[in-house]
Amino acid sequence: MDTGRQSPPIETVTIDDEFFRPRREINREVTIEYQYEQLEEAGTLENFRRASAGERGDHNGMWFQDSDAYKWIEAASYVLASRDDPDLQVRVEAVIELIAAAQAEDGYLNTYFALEVPDKRWSNLNTMHELYCGGHLIEAAVAHYRATGKESLLDVATDFADHVDRMFPEQIDGAPGHQEIELALMKLAAVTDEERYRDLAAYFVDVRGTTDRFAWENDHREEIATLDEWEGDEGGAEGDGEIGADADGEDGGDVDGADGDDEDDSAEEDWEDAEVEPYDASYNQAHAPLRDQEAVEGHAVRAMYYFAGATDVAAATGDDDLLAHLDSLWENMTQRRLYVTGGIGSQHPGERFTRDYHLPNDTAYAETCAAIGSVFWNQRLFEATGDAKYTDLIEWTLYNAVLPGVDLDGTEFFYDNPLASDGNRHREGWFECACCPPNLARLLASLERYLYATDDTGIYVNQYVGGTGELSVAGTAISISQNSDLPWDGTVTLDIDVAEPTAFDLRLRVPDWAEDVSITVDGEAVDTAVDATDAPTYVSIDREWEDARITVEFGMSVEVLEAHPAVAADAGRVALTRGPLVYCLEGVDHDRPLHQYAIDPDATFEAAHHDELLEGVTVLDGEATVPSLDGWDDELYRPAVETATENVSITAVPYYAWDNRDPGEMAVWVREA
Amino acid sequence: MDTGRQSPPIETVTIDDEFFRPRREINREVTIEYQYEQLEEAGTLENFRRASAGERGDHNGMWFQDSDAYKWIEAASYVLASRDDPDLQVRVEAVIELIAAAQAEDGYLNTYFALEVPDKRWSNLNTMHELYCGGHLIEAAVAHYRATGKESLLDVATDFADHVDRMFPEQIDGAPGHQEIELALMKLAAVTDEERYRDLAAYFVDVRGTTDRFAWENDHREEIATLDEWEGDEGGAEGDGEIGADADGEDGGDVDGADGDDEDDSAEEDWEDAEVEPYDASYNQAHAPLRDQEAVEGHAVRAMYYFAGATDVAAATGDDDLLAHLDSLWENMTQRRLYVTGGIGSQHPGERFTRDYHLPNDTAYAETCAAIGSVFWNQRLFEATGDAKYTDLIEWTLYNAVLPGVDLDGTEFFYDNPLASDGNRHREGWFECACCPPNLARLLASLERYLYATDDTGIYVNQYVGGTGELSVAGTAISISQNSDLPWDGTVTLDIDVAEPTAFDLRLRVPDWAEDVSITVDGEAVDTAVDATDAPTYVSIDREWEDARITVEFGMSVEVLEAHPAVAADAGRVALTRGPLVYCLEGVDHDRPLHQYAIDPDATFEAAHHDELLEGVTVLDGEATVPSLDGWDDELYRPAVETATENVSITAVPYYAWDNRDPGEMAVWVREA
Repeated sequence: MDTGRQSPPIETVTIDDEFFRPRREINREVTIEYQYEQLEEAGTLENFRRASAGERGDHNGMWFQDSDAYKWIEAASYVLASRDDPDLQVRVEAVIELIAAAQAEDGYLNTYFALEVPDKRWSNLNTMHELYCGGHLIEAAVAHYRATGKESLLDVATDFADHVDRMFPEQIDGAPGHQEIELALMKLAAVTDEERYRDLAAYFVDVRGTTDRFAWENDHREEIATLDEWEGDEGGAEGDGEIGADADGEDGGDVDGADGDDEDDSAEEDWEDAEVEPYDASYNQAHAPLRDQEAVEGHAVRAMYYFAGATDVAAATGDDDLLAHLDSLWENMTQRRLYVTGGIGSQHPGERFTRDYHLPNDTAYAETCAAIGSVFWNQRLFEATGDAKYTDLIEWTLYNAVLPGVDLDGTEFFYDNPLASDGNRHREGWFECACCPPNLARLLASLERYLYATDDTGIYVNQYVGGTGELSVAGTAISISQNSDLPWDGTVTLDIDVAEPTAFDLRLRVPDWAEDVSITVDGEAVDTAVDATDAPTYVSIDREWEDARITVEFGMSVEVLEAHPAVAADAGRVALTRGPLVYCLEGVDHDRPLHQYAIDPDATFEAAHHDELLEGVTVLDGEATVPSLDGWDDELYRPAVETATENVSITAVPYYAWDNRDPGEMAVWVREA
Repeated sequence: MDTGRQSPPIETVTIDDEFFRPRREINREVTIEYQYEQLEEAGTLENFRRASAGERGDHNGMWFQDSDAYKWIEAASYVLASRDDPDLQVRVEAVIELIAAAQAEDGYLNTYFALEVPDKRWSNLNTMHELYCGGHLIEAAVAHYRATGKESLLDVATDFADHVDRMFPEQIDGAPGHQEIELALMKLAAVTDEERYRDLAAYFVDVRGTTDRFAWENDHREEIATLDEWEGDEGGAEGDGEIGADADGEDGGDVDGADGDDEDDSAEEDWEDAEVEPYDASYNQAHAPLRDQEAVEGHAVRAMYYFAGATDVAAATGDDDLLAHLDSLWENMTQRRLYVTGGIGSQHPGERFTRDYHLPNDTAYAETCAAIGSVFWNQRLFEATGDAKYTDLIEWTLYNAVLPGVDLDGTEFFYDNPLASDGNRHREGWFECACCPPNLARLLASLERYLYATDDTGIYVNQYVGGTGELSVAGTAISISQNSDLPWDGTVTLDIDVAEPTAFDLRLRVPDWAEDVSITVDGEAVDTAVDATDAPTYVSIDREWEDARITVEFGMSVEVLEAHPAVAADAGRVALTRGPLVYCLEGVDHDRPLHQYAIDPDATFEAAHHDELLEGVTVLDGEATVPSLDGWDDELYRPAVETATENVSITAVPYYAWDNRDPGEMAVWVREA
């Protein structure tokens, strides 16, 4: 049985490079601070105050408003794990006090219910987000405990988890409408070493799709808590993937300028999908028991959180069948339902997967939060199996599906990430997009945990990001200091520092994009016994290590990609990549509308780095053809043989950096000449 | 000054061919009969009965329900013009009696207002369709009078027109929200020879876009009649282009299974567009005075009716500037905003034009009724100018944008006509699509009027449809008997029959699609002095005619077309045409999804006629390439250079005949190899 791999504690890893460090600074100094300000402005904290005072009515914001506080504490805790910040610490403790005071005697905790519908706890699992909030409470508590050693929030979390444990399944049998509790309970199990939390997580993983609880709720709306009562006094509305298009019928409200005023029609549609006949169980992956599900379906964020929790359960319980099944779902996702950027979710209504090979570009949903969820799931799959394909997808997803979600200033966000734009798709400020910043915040603040992993016999170098790692293998300390030229070049330098010669297996991930790989240790070439066709894989250098310098060269070249013939959206089109980056054309760099350009798959592109462009990027310069405009003036349709083409220059920029200059078109998939 | 051309009375022309005769039979025996049945079933006639009895409330159907009766009378009258049908005649007279009895003393006539809001006549020009209904009343009356010589309905129409003449502009100054009255008043002016109706039509043409009437109505909703009061008790809902997506917020209701239950979201959007801030004046071409409008904008049916009426006014008043301006709008439409099928209207919300070169295929609106409106307008432009480009567009529009609107059985209809389908676009029965049948009915029933035209010096042969014409030029009778192989071949035979040698100019339209043209008269070749690049044009054979046989050969070949480079939807794509027909690929004929096929513009296609297929069509057989599926199994994206192509056969069928076999995909624009 695979005993798994561990990610090191945050405080043992540092990130000190030119690419991620600046982003994390902005995350810390701008995003997380903004998150905190909203807690007061949107009335999130007021909810806790009033609930603890036993007041009634006037709940502020979304019915899952509590989770805003929890997500902030989680991100802030990741920061505090490595940094002294007394001011931040004080604020965190103050918010924890408010939270703890609002907890009921029996451990239940939810200010919406406390203030608005205290008699209807647990009556509506599908839409009322009680377990969703509870899961984020738990994640925050675990992060806080790990960062500070304090149990102030952990006690609240365990009391809540115990309450849930008493309620389910004896008093109420069913899964929540929005997965989150599963992976949270597994975190709690890990930090408390309590099996009952693991059993409870397993219960929630297994019960989904086996009861008719949601259908029952659908038919008994008058008896249960529903959103009909929620009057929409919204503020600081965060939710993962829910603003504007939530299946729970949530729309953007406009109290305190909290979120966008946009009443998205699709929110209506989603509401109908989720709550009225006929109830679409695939939306929250409840169409069948997990082990019978054959494809990744439904709301993409819910799916990712679900599979992440299920992977944790499978690893902890040694359930290799479940793990294999989750891998088959991973294969379905990556072979048939994944955008070239690693983005997932092909459709806005339902923010969901649709069907195999259905990957429209202009209407791609590819929610930033779903990509983050994919990172969460893939990390757990790696920890359970050690397979490089998972950490490889993490790299690809991070650069191409997560990072586009935020602009270079860190102040505007993409909720959904199109792969083609007519010029009218732009990032928006916090409140129009309130779900993404908190998820980005906690991922960026905990990025350290994804770089390295250890097991009994060695170290995995999973992500090539400059900085340090104070790792431990079988009780022995090993320091790694990394310098990485990614994503611009494939050169990585790793300095190993050990107190004395130490035997361990150094496993370096060879990315799928690497044309070739060459490794030297202290200047001597290492025969990797690995070539590009094996990637993604780990090169294993298993020896007795002394202090050493390892240099790794991953060959980077420009790739011109095609999609599977079944993908209608990409028929007759190509996409450009180089190294770990997906590229795109932007209208601001080109004279013609982007649909007029056609790229020959044999074309050569020159990579050129420009420090002053988009905070420093490597662009791809090459040629394409466009149709001649001669003689078209008065005609709209004419024989095809008459149209000549002209050669013109094109420049592709990294997709993550699009929409940071003047507004204009964008295209990842360009016509093939 | 151009004194214009006249279309001959219906009864002087017959259609007796294999293509249109069967369609007109079905139109007569099925469609027009069904139309009549609905008048009773949907409560249309009951409205008239109850209004004349002075009753109140419980109006049946749409607020423009009256127009259903008028459209039926119009179509039935066209039938009665050439056929004895005593039963039909009796029914027509009976309905006319009901209509006449419901007319108020002062000439006003509208059962919705009579029954529901009698005190609010003329308060809401934008949406309440009083003039729209009145226009159809007038068209019906003119058709009835011309067919039967009876003035029973004509008297009702003139009383109504006189009432309108008294009201506008002295008592109320503004244009109606849905154009129709303009062209109708011109028909009335022609048949009564009364200038005041022409002046009134000119007023309605000119006042549009010059007052703030609609904006005033928008701001005074509580004072005027609005759709808020209309409770949606719909039955037999007809309207041109309005079911399911009317800008007046009309949606399909479901009384007596009258129309589709589909509450189309876009109806909501359209309502908002039409009636709430900010009011979008371009929707009904009121954004500027007509003479200042630079492009065809807004709701396509409204635009066509408007420009048709304006063309009538320009011709009758000798306003050459206005005529030239209308031609410039025609050029804008045909050079930048027309589908290759002749369809118009690029967008469902608003059922409208969008912008130059914006011609999406799968979401093309291309409403059947808008194509019919285009035929109306083009016929008037021709009558005013004699320019072949208009009658040429009529032919193209008839075959490729009107005919697709009905299936081969005549029982199901396309309201909007996509140029690409994923397999889920199908014609629907009457009530889901209640606007198209009446418009198709009256066009098909009056098709005779489009075949020939005369002026002081000659005859125009405008449409190549077999049958006869008893024409008159400068008082002299000339008989034409036509035999046509269109649309399958370019051979036409015309037999001229004159009592004595008669001098006149026989003008034969040379279609734009003709590769070449050769003409013989009694076996002798005529030097046409016309070659294909002059087309569309008229070949003029001006002589003293005796009985003669003219044979015309228009060269037909398969054309592979491209669209203007600015048309994003057609970038890298080609469309197939042959003669007057646009072709398409259907999934039912092909193994791969249609997006996988690519056609080389140099490819040759064989035309083959199959009598037993789709009621007899010529198909185009040729070759295309598809990507090889080898080695793709587990991959989703891979280097483009690895994908090979295979040659396969393809078969294209006429676009008008699509969706008459098993459901499946369809594509007019196919990828170019």
